[in-house]
Amino acid sequence: MNKITEDIVKDWLPTREEDTYKNKMGHVLCVGGNENMGGAAILSASAALYAGAGLVSVASSPKNLHALHARLPEAMFVDMYDQESLSENIEQADVIVLGPGLGLSEDSLDVFKTVINTVNEKQWLVLDGDGITHLVNESSTAEIPTENIILTPHPGEWQRLSGIQPPADSPEENQQKQKELAATVVLKKDRTEVYIEDEIWENTAGNPSMATGGMGDTLTGIIASLLGQYENKKQALLSAVYMHSAVADELAETYYVTLPTKIIEYLPIFMKNLQL
Amino acid sequence: MNKITEDIVKDWLPTREEDTYKNKMGHVLCVGGNENMGGAAILSASAALYAGAGLVSVASSPKNLHALHARLPEAMFVDMYDQESLSENIEQADVIVLGPGLGLSEDSLDVFKTVINTVNEKQWLVLDGDGITHLVNESSTAEIPTENIILTPHPGEWQRLSGIQPPADSPEENQQKQKELAATVVLKKDRTEVYIEDEIWENTAGNPSMATGGMGDTLTGIIASLLGQYENKKQALLSAVYMHSAVADELAETYYVTLPTKIIEYLPIFMKNLQL
Amino acid sequence: MNKITEDIVKDWLPTREEDTYKNKMGHVLCVGGNENMGGAAILSASAALYAGAGLVSVASSPKNLHALHARLPEAMFVDMYDQESLSENIEQADVIVLGPGLGLSEDSLDVFKTVINTVNEKQWLVLDGDGITHLVNESSTAEIPTENIILTPHPGEWQRLSGIQPPADSPEENQQKQKELAATVVLKKDRTEVYIEDEIWENTAGNPSMATGGMGDTLTGIIASLLGQYENKKQALLSAVYMHSAVADELAETYYVTLPTKIIEYLPIFMKNLQL
Amino acid sequence: MNKITEDIVKDWLPTREEDTYKNKMGHVLCVGGNENMGGAAILSASAALYAGAGLVSVASSPKNLHALHARLPEAMFVDMYDQESLSENIEQADVIVLGPGLGLSEDSLDVFKTVINTVNEKQWLVLDGDGITHLVNESSTAEIPTENIILTPHPGEWQRLSGIQPPADSPEENQQKQKELAATVVLKKDRTEVYIEDEIWENTAGNPSMATGGMGDTLTGIIASLLGQYENKKQALLSAVYMHSAVADELAETYYVTLPTKIIEYLPIFMKNLQL
Repeated sequence: MNKITEDIVKDWLPTREEDTYKNKMGHVLCVGGNENMGGAAILSASAALYAGAGLVSVASSPKNLHALHARLPEAMFVDMYDQESLSENIEQADVIVLGPGLGLSEDSLDVFKTVINTVNEKQWLVLDGDGITHLVNESSTAEIPTENIILTPHPGEWQRLSGIQPPADSPEENQQKQKELAATVVLKKDRTEVYIEDEIWENTAGNPSMATGGMGDTLTGIIASLLGQYENKKQALLSAVYMHSAVADELAETYYVTLPTKIIEYLPIFMKNLQL
Repeated sequence: MNKITEDIVKDWLPTREEDTYKNKMGHVLCVGGNENMGGAAILSASAALYAGAGLVSVASSPKNLHALHARLPEAMFVDMYDQESLSENIEQADVIVLGPGLGLSEDSLDVFKTVINTVNEKQWLVLDGDGITHLVNESSTAEIPTENIILTPHPGEWQRLSGIQPPADSPEENQQKQKELAATVVLKKDRTEVYIEDEIWENTAGNPSMATGGMGDTLTGIIASLLGQYENKKQALLSAVYMHSAVADELAETYYVTLPTKIIEYLPIFMKNLQL
Repeated sequence: MNKITEDIVKDWLPTREEDTYKNKMGHVLCVGGNENMGGAAILSASAALYAGAGLVSVASSPKNLHALHARLPEAMFVDMYDQESLSENIEQADVIVLGPGLGLSEDSLDVFKTVINTVNEKQWLVLDGDGITHLVNESSTAEIPTENIILTPHPGEWQRLSGIQPPADSPEENQQKQKELAATVVLKKDRTEVYIEDEIWENTAGNPSMATGGMGDTLTGIIASLLGQYENKKQALLSAVYMHSAVADELAETYYVTLPTKIIEYLPIFMKNLQL
Repeated sequence: MNKITEDIVKDWLPTREEDTYKNKMGHVLCVGGNENMGGAAILSASAALYAGAGLVSVASSPKNLHALHARLPEAMFVDMYDQESLSENIEQADVIVLGPGLGLSEDSLDVFKTVINTVNEKQWLVLDGDGITHLVNESSTAEIPTENIILTPHPGEWQRLSGIQPPADSPEENQQKQKELAATVVLKKDRTEVYIEDEIWENTAGNPSMATGGMGDTLTGIIASLLGQYENKKQALLSAVYMHSAVADELAETYYVTLPTKIIEYLPIFMKNLQL
């Protein structure tokens, strides 16, 4: 199993061209945040922005507009229940995150379907949380553009998605299932594993101060952000998984619990230090 | 009377297991925050999160959704007036805080009753402020699952709850009443006293810069948070009472008034320093 | 003319008693903030809280509830257009600020009248901005409890209030008019003058980095806060005027413009340093 | 081509008179922020305030009131779709920013026309983003008070506005078109060019960490702020263009991406350092 280490992540970090501009740094659309879990979408979008995405939009329940702009005025808002508006915004994005705080209502299923049916082959889709549950529930009917899809299940979601029982859980079995899905899988654990193409990578960073809600939402935003900035998408994904945990490792020297908002705030400093 | 000191609190602070995850760190539900006092519920939830709770939900007036997500995107929102939704969320929680900013309206009484009637024997209930007043008013009719209940009255609330007149106020008398109530009592004073099982504990921290609104709401969140994380619930409670004041003692070296939001922000740093 | 200097303000700063609690530190009610100027009431309330008030409530347009709680969860909210609720809250307050962002509509005039007619002789009233304009407009009909009223006009408001033309502006003339009004007057200038009882005091602090909107709203909050905490009300007022500017003087060494929110944030640190 | 350097910007920075007050520091009105892009108007207003404007108002969709006050209580709010209210507020302003997050709907076109038709010869108008697009679309019918207009197009907007094709893009050609428009043009690039009167100025600051959404909105606020404070408007504009990028250059030593909100926060410190 390959290890994601600071050395290679440092090596992969791109140096921005002098004359770059926001449209070259990726447009991320975070789809999620129902009437109860708006914060999840805000965390995902914040992480995307602070990790360097050129443009960030949030498709969410109309209730979340106020908090989004109050926390993150750099982001744009879309009503995720307005199908036309959602479709238009999907078309304009380079990377779409689907799932943080999305919920499992009928309305959220419609949102799920609109995204799945609209996303095209050139775009990247990061599927998380309730997005994965919708995928499991709809797997017989949903037409999924799997080529560029990244699934970020926690162990429970992976079990439902793969059908693999915990006792039999092994990297080889996970890899076989990942290939059947024809997707990239980020299996979130204390040492997160990434199944991509024919390779398996294990994260070397992370610590128990990260055991707090919103951590997964934050990871989706970092992944989406780097996918929009890096030429090499595998390097982007592996770097995102590492950075998310490595930032927490640094913060854990000062904080008993490393909250997602703290990790987000520290991301651009961590990335700069990595570059130096 | 036993003293809660830094030494024993430091000793009790758990070291997280390497492979822990958010569901093991306790799910706290803060119920409160009507149309006038939404900030109280936000403070309680913020304190719970910054003290390390794995998951934090807020059941409150729908008016408070915007401010909650704007301040604390890590938290989830529940409409406390939607009885079905409230009941479902109570069932999912490990620890429930009831009272901060709840108010004394008919609607808030319904909320109070729903919580009291839904909470089960394995859960912990922290009852504060207007929650205590409802308890006093309804004491003849409400069926209270007293085993795991923690009451956090200030002196005026304790007087109404215990029927003890201030002149006759003594630890022994308080203890007798606490046993009758079959509850744990945190009597908030300049040196807060905790009546738990057969023991009386006195806080050794605290200072007059804490004389500001929202301080009690903040304490409820810390208590709930540690109850969700510690194996030993007595240690959790006593540690929470101490940490709340000890953080303020440190901040009071720099600030004339130590606002709840400052205490909350500094909590994870204080806890880390305690661990080192 | 007496000078308000650091030495006397330092001397007057009270040391809190060890067993004090929030109800002893003053309950401040800020009335203001219409549909366009909600920030003014938020600034006033924030300043009151950060200067040490025990409890702070804001009576404002319902539109401002969200932003208030998002910025200042320690404060309570009241709908200022709900006359019954407003009256009840006035009765519970020790100090009332009336004016910041209040506006000049018919509705705001009703609010003005409710406050003027409800406030009692033991309470302190700080009248600012649109509150002063309403006073000028209604001077023939409004029954004003002048004993404990503090007016905080800028030069234009003072001219309208006093009828004194700028060319003839002199401390003696101002004092004569202040005595006619039987009120305390804080005349805001680059060196603010306070006319109280038979004395005239001149501020020795202040600088041009303070020339920005919201500065006066902030001053009202500090005045109200110290009135609620100090035994000696003259000392409270003069200290508030000084602290507001002295904080800005310190910040102006680092910032080209010293925004109200920065002054508010730094207040409890400044006050602590003064105490040491 | 003239260069905008630190030396001349430092030289031009005004020292505020001791007895100045907010009305002398310029009243900036930012018009923009529809139901999807409210953050853009908030960023523009925030930048105006943190760069020292005496008063800042935001005319925006009513949906953005909450987030505006939550982030920036110093600013006042106006419903941009209320034509009477918008007109009144335009009349009271010294500098108007039109465009950030304005959108291209019919309603936004009405807003555009109201501003264009109400602004007078003594006021300054900064036209950005969707404001420029409306100008292009309406160029045959809109009566534009070009004397004091500053256009801040990015390359794509400039192409549509000027009709100049990219291959033929040259400073001389740009200047010729600028003179035809009888406006000042800030052509945003990695090295931004300013076409003003008969002169062409090139910015010497800026770096690729600025390639993120909201950067242009932030620039409009700084420009408007300095226009309201400086006697010499050319110096104000050139200084604003420089400061915006120079702040980012300093921050880029610490941050991988320099977000607009970070630049805004650091502005008053940067300006103070420039003054020392």
